[in-house]
Formats: sequence, structure tokens, C-alpha cells
Amino acid sequence: MEIIRSVKQLQQQAEKLRQSGKRIGFVPTMGYLHEGHQALMEKARNENDILIVSIFVNPLQFGPGEDFDTYPRDQERDAQIAKTQHVDILFLPSTEEMYPKEQAITMRVVRRADVLCGKSREGHFDGVVAVLTKLFHLAQPHRVYFGMKDAQQVAVVDALVKDFNFPLDIVPVSTVREEDGLAKSSRNVYLSDQERQEAKEIYQALMHGRQLIVDGTKNPDTIVKEVEDFIKKRTHGKIDYVELLTYPELTPMNVVQRQVILAAAVHFEKARLIDNLVLDQNGLLSEGL
Amino acid sequence: MEIIRSVKQLQQQAEKLRQSGKRIGFVPTMGYLHEGHQALMEKARNENDILIVSIFVNPLQFGPGEDFDTYPRDQERDAQIAKTQHVDILFLPSTEEMYPKEQAITMRVVRRADVLCGKSREGHFDGVVAVLTKLFHLAQPHRVYFGMKDAQQVAVVDALVKDFNFPLDIVPVSTVREEDGLAKSSRNVYLSDQERQEAKEIYQALMHGRQLIVDGTKNPDTIVKEVEDFIKKRTHGKIDYVELLTYPELTPMNVVQRQVILAAAVHFEKARLIDNLVLDQNGLLSEGL
Repeated sequence: MEIIRSVKQLQQQAEKLRQSGKRIGFVPTMGYLHEGHQALMEKARNENDILIVSIFVNPLQFGPGEDFDTYPRDQERDAQIAKTQHVDILFLPSTEEMYPKEQAITMRVVRRADVLCGKSREGHFDGVVAVLTKLFHLAQPHRVYFGMKDAQQVAVVDALVKDFNFPLDIVPVSTVREEDGLAKSSRNVYLSDQERQEAKEIYQALMHGRQLIVDGTKNPDTIVKEVEDFIKKRTHGKIDYVELLTYPELTPMNVVQRQVILAAAVHFEKARLIDNLVLDQNGLLSEGL
Repeated sequence: MEIIRSVKQLQQQAEKLRQSGKRIGFVPTMGYLHEGHQALMEKARNENDILIVSIFVNPLQFGPGEDFDTYPRDQERDAQIAKTQHVDILFLPSTEEMYPKEQAITMRVVRRADVLCGKSREGHFDGVVAVLTKLFHLAQPHRVYFGMKDAQQVAVVDALVKDFNFPLDIVPVSTVREEDGLAKSSRNVYLSDQERQEAKEIYQALMHGRQLIVDGTKNPDTIVKEVEDFIKKRTHGKIDYVELLTYPELTPMNVVQRQVILAAAVHFEKARLIDNLVLDQNGLLSEGL
């Protein structure tokens, strides 16, 4: 595994690999790798000649008061995991390397961003698409892998790629869960024992909402209300949102139809957890894009 | 020469060419080709294996009340010229092909855009960088050629490429002029005979400003004032701006130093003409970037 810290070096390397006919798979991450990331790497490893993984905690996608400074970091452990996953190139740029000066040009996500996590994280997705645009130009991948736990991110990146004709495919990968259903997340380490017990109820609540759809409930408000009540009854967490929207357009609907996302975000003491299910109109789990 | 109208087809073709080791030169234009464009094509032809030219009048870069509808178009003549210049691929997309739906993600130029033409053309460069981002992803060029007549555009594209790490080089090409000095422009066809006579004075005015720098004048205000007076005395045009700024940063200065741009825009009855000189601190003409 080669570790690259320079943007220029990664770009030259990627260029060379493409020219020699290699298919490049790319997994952009913020590090503190867990089984969710490993699932992305495994899939990318299987589907491509070359696997590039980046670890970069992108300041642009954190708002003031968010956890940029305290976001968990452990480069040594991450590098070990990447090695185990047979990563070819691990890209570890510094902030100065990625943003040598203030950007003269900014990107703004004007659709798919004012709901779910975007509602409370003003500017978050603007930062996400900016850093991904840079990373896509550096790693020059044929396929890029994203976890469906961040389903809104997948929807926004889908728009990014289509709006600007990036020559690559987005591959959504199913959320990896603990045995009790809790979605794997770098932020789970911040849960107390009690909170960890309660956290599984978010997934249970979504599965309860799903069952309502399976059983024929078509009214989004009814489903959202039931999911909220489920979470309130079983956790001390504070609900940020529960929403049921079309996917990947992320628009509201009057009646459950086509493909939808049922998503929730819950604040615990030191961590805000998110989870979601993407479903067809009959409540069957679906792939995402 | 192959004519391509589909974004997907161009992207696949470019991908194939790159994989076979070809160096791609790209000249993005809005058509109504003149000797200025031909100079770009000639240089691109000489420096690359493959020459791709696009013709697309980009609605996103025209403001309300600007000349999008009346912008001169002549695809047949343009195709003839492209053939003469040994273009390999002429890309002629429709608006629907380029913008099948409203963009979910917009770009905003927050530096280098609030001076010169950007001042009176709100959002113009936002539209320019959006369409170029798309075109760069479609044509996948190694080098892209821009005329220095639109020096602000070159400065903005320079920022675009650096901010987002596009894997390509921008090549600025000197302004091509009529014998009397008037910069070639698609919009020159809108000048009356009298205006055409006067139009050459814009270049003369800039050259007069340049002479002041050569002779040791270091105060930008003095130079700008002299250039303005020169234009006012010799034309019936209405000055939009005369500005002297650093290049390519496009910031004001107290004293002429390093690389600067002396630029003017003048409204005639049916056409707004622009011209500029990029100079070093001694008034010597320089290349641009």
C-alpha cells in the first residue's frame, strides 16, 4: 500500500493508472474507519483493478459549533485497516494541501439539501460537494463508493455527478449494522452505555415505520408520527427529525409512492445519530439510486 | 471531422482517446467563429494529438436583458471553419442536452468576479464556470485554450482549475486584432460604419495607458483617467469601465507593480466592446497566466 500526501502526486499517479487501462475504484472517507467503510472497500476492491481510499476530515463541511475539532481521528489504526483491505493507495492530505488558499469559487447545493440533515447543517453539503469535486479530479476514479447510511449525501452526490457530467459512476452500498441493528458510525464511540442500549431503537423505529407501509399505510404524516412516538417512548434522545421523502429527489409527497426514504436523526448527549431506510412503495428495502 | 451532439457520446469518445494515450486539446466557444478562435484552434492543433472544439451558446452566462437570443449564430459556416482548422471533433450540443433539468448544484465565483465585466454582468462568471466544468468533464482535455481578449474569464478559469484541481492546463492565447488594432469579436458585426471607425480607439487608448507606464507613471488613477479621457474624446461610445488591476488576482493596487491588466469596456449602439492589455510593471506586454 502506497501512502500519498501530495495532491499533485496522487493526480499524476491516477493519470498514469488510467492511461495503462486500469479501472480505479475510490472510497472517500473522513477516517476512523469501521465496518461500514470496510464494506465500501471490499466492494470497491472486488469491482476494480485499483483501490484508492482517501482520509480527510474536510473543514468545509462542518458548521460553526459542529464537531470538526473533536471528530475522532486515528491515522495509524486507519492505515492498518486499509492495509488489511488491500488498498493500493491511501491518500492522506493535510488541510493546507487541500485548501492552500481560500476558494475563489464556491458550490451551493440548492436542491436535495434543505431537508433531513441539511436542514440543521447549513452549508454542510456545499462543503461535501466541493471536497468531492476536488477528490474526484485527483483520484480520477471510474467508480466511487458511498454508504447509504448517509443517504442524503448519496442523493446530493448523484445530483453533483449528473449536473456536472463527471465521468464516473456512483455506487451506493447498504448500511452496515451492529447485531442489534444500530448503524455503524464513527460517532458511536461517544455514546454512554445507556445511550448505546437506546440507540438501537432508532433502527427499530424505522423498521416499525416500514412495517406500516408494508401493511398498507400510505399517509406519510401517519408514518412519521408513529416513528417519532416509537423513538420518544424508548430513548432519552432528542429527535432532530423524522422524515419520509421521495428518493433520491428528497421532496415531500402526499401518498407513499415509487421510491422513498424514511430517515431519522436523534441527538444524544455527545453524539447525533442518523439512520434511514430506502424503500419501494410496498415497503421493500431497495438499493438507493 | 466528426460532429457530436450527445454529451454521452463525447464523453465516451474522449475516454477512449485518453486511454489510447492521445493528448487532447480543447477549445470551448460560443460559435460565430472568427480569427480569434482560429488562433486558438491553430495553437491547440499544433500542441495536441486530438483537437476538440465545442460550440454552445450557454444560457447560464447571460443575464436578463443581455443578448442571449440575438447572439450571432451560424453553425454551417462555423462547421466549415472548424473543418479548415483540422478539428477532429466538433461538439454541438443542444441546450436540452447540456441542461436536461434545472441544476441542483450551482457554482459561485466569489473572487475575481466583482470587477471589470463581472461588475455589470451579475452571475455571468457563475454561468461560465458551470458550463466549463461540464465541458471539461465531457471533453476530458489535457489542455484548454482561451483567448486573452476575455482576460477576466481566463483569470476566473485559472481559479476554477486551481480551486478544484482539474487535471488539465489552461493555455492563454494572445488577442487577435484587426489591422487597426480592434480586437476581433463576434459582436463586431453589430457596429455601424462610424462605430467601427471609432472602435479602434479603444485599443489606442489602452496603448496610450501602456505608454504612460513605460514612461514611469506608477499611479493607477492617473493612468485610468487618461485612458478614459482618450476614449471619450475619440468615440461616441459610453464607457462601462476602465480599470487597472493586478493580474490574474484582479485586485486594486496603489502603485503599478508585478503583473497588471489595463482593461476597458465601451458600449456602442448595439454592441458592448471589451479589450485589455496584460503588462508587467515596466509596461511590457506579457502572456497572461
